Amino acid sequence: MAENNLYHEITPEGFGIAIKKDKDLFSDKSDFQKVDVFHSRAFGNVLTLDGLMMVTERDEFFYHEMIVHVPMLTHPNPENILVIGGGDGGTVRELLKHKSVKHIDMVEIDKMVIDVSKKFFPSVSCALDNPKVSIVVQDAVEFIKNKKDFYDVVLIDSTDPIGPGEGLFNENFYNDVKKAVKKGAIITPQTEGPFAQSENFKKTYKLLKKVFKNVAPYCSPMPTYPGGYWSWGFCSDDVEIPLDYTKIDKSRAQTIEKTSKLYNRELHSAVFKVPNFVKELIKD
Amino acid sequence: MAENNLYHEITPEGFGIAIKKDKDLFSDKSDFQKVDVFHSRAFGNVLTLDGLMMVTERDEFFYHEMIVHVPMLTHPNPENILVIGGGDGGTVRELLKHKSVKHIDMVEIDKMVIDVSKKFFPSVSCALDNPKVSIVVQDAVEFIKNKKDFYDVVLIDSTDPIGPGEGLFNENFYNDVKKAVKKGAIITPQTEGPFAQSENFKKTYKLLKKVFKNVAPYCSPMPTYPGGYWSWGFCSDDVEIPLDYTKIDKSRAQTIEKTSKLYNRELHSAVFKVPNFVKELIKD
Repeated sequence: MAENNLYHEITPEGFGIAIKKDKDLFSDKSDFQKVDVFHSRAFGNVLTLDGLMMVTERDEFFYHEMIVHVPMLTHPNPENILVIGGGDGGTVRELLKHKSVKHIDMVEIDKMVIDVSKKFFPSVSCALDNPKVSIVVQDAVEFIKNKKDFYDVVLIDSTDPIGPGEGLFNENFYNDVKKAVKKGAIITPQTEGPFAQSENFKKTYKLLKKVFKNVAPYCSPMPTYPGGYWSWGFCSDDVEIPLDYTKIDKSRAQTIEKTSKLYNRELHSAVFKVPNFVKELIKD
Repeated sequence: MAENNLYHEITPEGFGIAIKKDKDLFSDKSDFQKVDVFHSRAFGNVLTLDGLMMVTERDEFFYHEMIVHVPMLTHPNPENILVIGGGDGGTVRELLKHKSVKHIDMVEIDKMVIDVSKKFFPSVSCALDNPKVSIVVQDAVEFIKNKKDFYDVVLIDSTDPIGPGEGLFNENFYNDVKKAVKKGAIITPQTEGPFAQSENFKKTYKLLKKVFKNVAPYCSPMPTYPGGYWSWGFCSDDVEIPLDYTKIDKSRAQTIEKTSKLYNRELHSAVFKVPNFVKELIKD
């Protein structure tokens, strides 16, 4: 939605963010959703899907560093990684900073998102052509059914639980993910904004806790998402929560910290300390 | 600024928040600023000053719990408190949850803010008539000059460093605050959004570090402020940073936790663990 040169994403309750557009760069309909790119002085290039904010050049690090480095540095030796969604490439870029990674499958349903990101978001998509990365253009709900006992870390870098992302917030899907991972694996879905989308958040954690033994949200700011406050799920059948931070390999973590705008080891533990209202939402 | 029934606060760079207005409730000009109140489905009643977001009924707890409970529970026995600004009353309400408090001076320059809050924000202003509270309608820059060696905690709950709040982001003012406090005192100003107002943030910490021996920002989400991510300064000549959390009185903290939507002791330490880009802004 654009009015008077302002892009808005407004929640059904009636609030959200506004960004001044300088220039429309791309607009098309893929088989799955409307794909738009515009330029803004505040955030550089901005990608929206069905009008909802996905990625901006300036603040994408808040999201991508959090979804990647928290599970990756908790795992002692993550080699095979699955990214579900994440067509912009930011998650893959951060993953490849981890030297242990041997292979990444990125399963994105919408090729147009990948193409648009390669064209308009070079600083985000820059690692998509790396030989360690297989890009699979397919519905992850189907892809995951054929994978057994393979991945060390699974990142569900999905859109919101409406439209093409809907099937990724689902008990059957989480059960298939569980079968696709090795012992000791960590599964991290993006789990929406605990303040702006508290009902979705609550529902998602109820499902995750049905499927995985150990589940905890971690929360961090995300300026261009509704409420400015986002969450990811730390899910594992084997890794105990609260995490034992002394097990994080110092040298691996330092490599990541050096190139991070957000991530540091102190923050790694801090993001699991959540407000009372978040605890309340996940207590069932 | 309202367009098509949307309230916007847009930074000079061109981004910010949008809230759907249901109804305008109040609009007037005080001696200092334009004062507006509207109702929204998303946030209940909303107060803006010179068009800038100040308080909403639904998310004010993010701000007020943070500015109050972090310094208050760090101080072993805070009795005499100074609130600078804070005319909506939310800071005073949270302060009075601390049994040690003997007296609060609240120095607000603009009487209209107090009156409007009493009328339209009863859940925020509810403690302003408490006998422990003296409301002083005066410029805090003048008020503070006559106070020596008196306060245990000073909270600078100001507007942005433009308009009437400008003189509160100033070395002379901080020096006067320093003279007004007792040994062991903690001074906590709101210090803007480290992402959305990074230049103001940087400038403020440079000033604070000139005046106070120990200075550290703590950061937490604030949905209706630009960038959704806010900061407060922990400043003291005597209390060492990093804080010794074992010194926080468990029983005092539990009393606060019970009525808090946000605050808990884990969060108290977590909010001081800041992203790399925030560390970078305060390193000089």
